Amino acid sequence: MSFATAETRDAVSAESCNPRTATYPPQPTHFDARGEFDLVVAMRHAGTRNVRVRWQLVGNPDAPTLVVQGGISADRNAAATDAAATDTATEPGWWQAQIGADGGFDLRRVQLLSIDWIGADGTLDAPIDTADQADAIAATLDRLRIARIAAFVGCSYGALVGLQFAARYPTRLQKLVAISGAHRPHPYASALRALQRKVVALGQLQCADELGLSIARQLAMLTYRTPEEFEQRFVADTVLDGAHARCAAEDYLEVCGARYAERWSPTAFLRLSESIDLHRVDPAQVTVPTTLVAVEGDRLVPPTDVHELAGRIAAPTRVHVLRSLYGHDAFLKDVMPVAAILRKALETSSFDCSNGGVA
Amino acid sequence: MSFATAETRDAVSAESCNPRTATYPPQPTHFDARGEFDLVVAMRHAGTRNVRVRWQLVGNPDAPTLVVQGGISADRNAAATDAAATDTATEPGWWQAQIGADGGFDLRRVQLLSIDWIGADGTLDAPIDTADQADAIAATLDRLRIARIAAFVGCSYGALVGLQFAARYPTRLQKLVAISGAHRPHPYASALRALQRKVVALGQLQCADELGLSIARQLAMLTYRTPEEFEQRFVADTVLDGAHARCAAEDYLEVCGARYAERWSPTAFLRLSESIDLHRVDPAQVTVPTTLVAVEGDRLVPPTDVHELAGRIAAPTRVHVLRSLYGHDAFLKDVMPVAAILRKALETSSFDCSNGGVA
Repeated sequence: MSFATAETRDAVSAESCNPRTATYPPQPTHFDARGEFDLVVAMRHAGTRNVRVRWQLVGNPDAPTLVVQGGISADRNAAATDAAATDTATEPGWWQAQIGADGGFDLRRVQLLSIDWIGADGTLDAPIDTADQADAIAATLDRLRIARIAAFVGCSYGALVGLQFAARYPTRLQKLVAISGAHRPHPYASALRALQRKVVALGQLQCADELGLSIARQLAMLTYRTPEEFEQRFVADTVLDGAHARCAAEDYLEVCGARYAERWSPTAFLRLSESIDLHRVDPAQVTVPTTLVAVEGDRLVPPTDVHELAGRIAAPTRVHVLRSLYGHDAFLKDVMPVAAILRKALETSSFDCSNGGVA
Repeated sequence: MSFATAETRDAVSAESCNPRTATYPPQPTHFDARGEFDLVVAMRHAGTRNVRVRWQLVGNPDAPTLVVQGGISADRNAAATDAAATDTATEPGWWQAQIGADGGFDLRRVQLLSIDWIGADGTLDAPIDTADQADAIAATLDRLRIARIAAFVGCSYGALVGLQFAARYPTRLQKLVAISGAHRPHPYASALRALQRKVVALGQLQCADELGLSIARQLAMLTYRTPEEFEQRFVADTVLDGAHARCAAEDYLEVCGARYAERWSPTAFLRLSESIDLHRVDPAQVTVPTTLVAVEGDRLVPPTDVHELAGRIAAPTRVHVLRSLYGHDAFLKDVMPVAAILRKALETSSFDCSNGGVA
C-alpha cells in the first residue's frame, strides 16, 4: 500500500510531496507526504464552492490510518518527522509532543492524516459548517484511496468535525476520539467568540486588521486557559507604564496575539470561529465506539455538555474527565495524561484488518 | 443632627439639594440630599489634582450613616427615594432592591451616603488608585461633618475602596462589609480587563469610540455573569443573519453595550477599569470587624482570594460564600441572600452611639 506514491503520481499540487522512509531512532519507519487538490464542496450554508484542500500524511505507510485534527488555529502539520521535505514540515507539528513511543502515536504503528481546515487560507469568505469540513476530509480519504480509517482523533474544533464525520460517514471509521468538543457550542462560549469576531470587525472597519486580530486572539487565549494557570504564571503586580497601567500577563498575550496575526487573516479567523458556533450534530447519528475527553475548568466546553453528549451517542462511549491547569488547552499541554488516554483508546489490538484498506 | 441642612447651607453645588422627610409607607422617615464640591486630591500616581465630588445621602438623618459604594459603573444613586428632588434621583438606584424592611437597608434606621467615583465624569485622565477614592470619600464625610460611619458597605470596586478606607481611616468606620472584592486583582481578571481596555483603545484609534466602548462593556458583562446563567437564558441555536452567524446572546449583549456607551466615556471606563488593576491593600492594615462575601463562580474575584484576605485581616472577620447563578453580579441579582447577609452584618444592636456623630 502506498498512498503517498499514488498521490505523487496523481498530484495536482505544486507543493513538494516526498514520501520516503528513514531508519533513525526512535521512529525507524515513517514517511512524510504532503499534497493539495481542488475540491468542489456542496456547502451547508453557502452553495457550491471550490476550495483547495491541503493534506499531510506521516507515519508507517503500511499501518492503519488515523485522521488527526486540532483546533481552528491548527494546520495539517500535526506531526513533523525527520523525513520532512519542506521547510514548513520541519517545524514541529502542533501535536508533536504526542509522537513517539511514550506519546499517543507511535509512527511505526500508525500513519496520521491531517488537513488544513477549509477556510484557513482566508480565501473562503462564507459560513463554513463542521459538516463541510467532514466532507473535505472524506474527499481527501477518497483522493488517497483510504476506504476506512482506524480512528478519527479530533481536539477542540477537530472534535466537532470528528463528530460530524462519524455521523456522516459511519462506515469509514472504526472509532472516534473527541477531545474537548461536544455536539453543540455552549451559549456562553458562543458569546465569547461572537465578541472576538466583533473585535476583528472593529479592526477591519478602521484598517487596523492586524491589531483587531491580535486582540481577538488574546481574548481567545484567555478562554483556552484558566485563572489557575495565570495565578501561577503572572505573579507581578500591575505597574504603571507611563500614564497607563500594564498587567503582568500583557507581554505574554501580546506576543501570542502578534504571532497569530502574522500568520492568519481576519477572514480565516472570522469564518472558522463562526463555524464553531454554527456547529450542531445529532449524537444519535454517532454509531461508532467513541472516547470523549472533557476537562474540568474548560471555559469553552463544560464537562456537563460532554456528559450529555456521551449519554446520547448510539454506541459504546467512554468519557475521561481530566483535571488540568490548562483548561481547554489540556490536549496541548497535559502530554502524559492525554497520551495515556490516546494509547488506551487506540490500542492496536482493537484495530481490525479492514482498517486502512485501499478503496 | 442635620447633615443635609448643613450641606445645603454650605453648598458649592448648583445642583438641587433638597432635604425633606416623608411619611408614606414603607419608609416613613427618610430624605434625599445631593450635592457636589471641588476637592484637591493628592493622588497616588498622578500628583495633585482638582476633582469634583458628587454625593447623595438618603435615609433617616438621625440614624447612623453607612457608606455604600458599588462597581465601577455604579453612581451615587444607590437608593432613590420618593423624596427625591431631581429627575436623576427618581430613577431607581443601582441597589434599590436592597431598600426596605425586607432588604438589607431600612431607611428608617440608617442613612446611606454614596459618591460618584472620581474619574466617572471622564474629566480625570490619569491613573486613579483605590486609595484616592477612599480619600475622596473621607473628604465627603468631612464636608458632611460625619466623623464616623457605622459601616462601609462596598461591592466589587466598592469593596476594594472599602478595604482602602478601612486601612487608611480605621477610626472612621465601625465595620467593613466587602462583597466580591479582595486585596489584590486576580492576574486572570486583570488580563481580561487589560483586553477590554485594548478594545476601547482600538475604537478610539479611529473615532469609533462608542463601538469600542460597547464591545468592551459586552466583554465585561461576560465576566460579571456565568456560563450557567447563559445556559438558561440563551437556548436558541446560532443562526445565519445574512452571510454571518449570530449567537443567541448577541442581542442582549449589544443592548447592554450600547446603553453603557451612551452614558460613559472611554476615559472614565479606561481609568476606572485600570484602577481595579492598580489596587493593592495590605490586609493587616484592616483593623475593624469585617464581613467578606465571596461568590462561587465569580470569574473576577475567586473565593480563594477572599479566603486569603480573610486570613490576613487583623480583626474579627466573617466570610460568607454564596452560591449564585450570577457570579460576580450576585450582589445585584441575588437580593434575598445578600439582604440576609447585610442585615446580619449591620445589626443595629452592634451600632454604638458614637456612629454617625457630627465632627
